[in-house]
Amino acid sequence: MEESALIIVSTKKPVMNYVTACVTAFNSGHRKLLLRARGRSISSAVDVVNLLKSGFLSGLKVERVGVGSEDVDGGNDPVSFIEIEISRP
Amino acid sequence: MEESALIIVSTKKPVMNYVTACVTAFNSGHRKLLLRARGRSISSAVDVVNLLKSGFLSGLKVERVGVGSEDVDGGNDPVSFIEIEISRP
Repeated sequence: MEESALIIVSTKKPVMNYVTACVTAFNSGHRKLLLRARGRSISSAVDVVNLLKSGFLSGLKVERVGVGSEDVDGGNDPVSFIEIEISRP
Repeated sequence: MEESALIIVSTKKPVMNYVTACVTAFNSGHRKLLLRARGRSISSAVDVVNLLKSGFLSGLKVERVGVGSEDVDGGNDPVSFIEIEISRP
């Protein structure tokens, strides 16, 4: 089963940077991408998927959405994360 | 099939308000809840689920996570949303 290419979404860059990264990854042959984001960037990851759907890849499919929490840098203050697996038509 | 009680999560209130609302809804007999949030509040909805899991209902189950976008107030600037359906053990 083909591995999804991982794209970490953060608020440090504009959302369009990640939209471009996804289009580039699909154009370079990946069929599936896994978008991952933590904390305040979770909303941006959802924005990336919606922008891709509405403006670039109308047939884009959301394969799986998972949410959870993880410890950061060995601390004990867990942060929320989202994983969104998408595939091109 | 029992309808999920709907809880709209927004950044206008502290996350703990929604954690309390969920615990109250479960205690009043609901077996399933549907958390819904838009835009910047999407991260908060994920926080609510993780706080419930880690601190209140260890057996909490995430039944379904959906993402999408919708027009707001008839405008044409769609906003992202998340829906997280959870059920108590």
